[in-house]
Amino acid sequence: MLPQALQKFINVFSKMPGLGPRAATRLAFYISNLEREKLAVIAAAFENFKKLNRCKKCFFIKDDSLPLCGFCADKSRNQKIIAITEKETDLISLEKSGYFKGVYFLIGELNDKDVIESSQKMRLQYLKNRIKNELGGQADEIIVALSPTSLSDILYEMIKDEFKNLAGTISRLGRGIPTGGEIEFADEETLKNALDRRS
Amino acid sequence: MLPQALQKFINVFSKMPGLGPRAATRLAFYISNLEREKLAVIAAAFENFKKLNRCKKCFFIKDDSLPLCGFCADKSRNQKIIAITEKETDLISLEKSGYFKGVYFLIGELNDKDVIESSQKMRLQYLKNRIKNELGGQADEIIVALSPTSLSDILYEMIKDEFKNLAGTISRLGRGIPTGGEIEFADEETLKNALDRRS
Repeated sequence: MLPQALQKFINVFSKMPGLGPRAATRLAFYISNLEREKLAVIAAAFENFKKLNRCKKCFFIKDDSLPLCGFCADKSRNQKIIAITEKETDLISLEKSGYFKGVYFLIGELNDKDVIESSQKMRLQYLKNRIKNELGGQADEIIVALSPTSLSDILYEMIKDEFKNLAGTISRLGRGIPTGGEIEFADEETLKNALDRRS
Repeated sequence: MLPQALQKFINVFSKMPGLGPRAATRLAFYISNLEREKLAVIAAAFENFKKLNRCKKCFFIKDDSLPLCGFCADKSRNQKIIAITEKETDLISLEKSGYFKGVYFLIGELNDKDVIESSQKMRLQYLKNRIKNELGGQADEIIVALSPTSLSDILYEMIKDEFKNLAGTISRLGRGIPTGGEIEFADEETLKNALDRRS
């Protein structure tokens, strides 16, 4: 009974994270009630996704016209302390805690097949080169900031082994995040504790 | 620290119903990780909103190329039983209950200033003309299907008064929907009861 255009939108958006068919339907009607000018603003926001790219240093999202992302380009941040995070949203949560002043490195979302993907191994190789070329072969600290799962335990051990000569300290976020929980949803205090008690 | 294009998207989407800044941020990163082709599909879905229009009979969303919406065009539905609903999502919930086989009439979302808007009074005038011109001056039944609030009580009384000569019965959804609750989120059984016990 719905116009095809609307149904298509609902189909696409109901597959997005945090949205189901009901939320997508609600969104669709909300947008279809907007004035033409507001619709143009939204359409333009989508067009702008084409102007995004990955930072060559840390793999975070950056403006296509800039050489680096905002974190890597910020000279006031300690480039010798590197936090390895899974997803952009994890990075944002850590950043919002306000307690981390180093830089980031995105390893990509860990899969549920309990295997480190080859693209993730390549990113680690890339990080090694970055430490060799830009930090004279030695970072002050690598903080493994991954949500605690069995696969992230494996990845942590792998990093400890492979980076032992490339970093003064290799730590991971401490207790404070419940096992099975997700960094993205932790409150700031929990994240502060996790940073303070890193081991 | 976020690219401007991404921040703009988050600003726009965090104001949408059901989405806050966190959900919008999550959505933004999800979309920025999509392949170009999928991005094009989403952009096209937005373009398609321009192809939508309001049904001239009931004010529901319809395809711009069609004369009427799917409900009004469906000859198998009883055109003499009219359910007055606030929002499209209310209509969809009623329709999904599967117990209503009449047609609809959208009055528009009631405001929180406890006043029936002039545009809503105009729509009622429009419904009167529709009954006069298309149903020979008499509908079998008007079902006032509004979420129960003090303003919808006022609107119900107004409709009972103004349509008393234009409909055999004027009813409203019966008990079953808790006061302060919203039609949109009622389950099918509750909606069935509300339809059965209309008074």
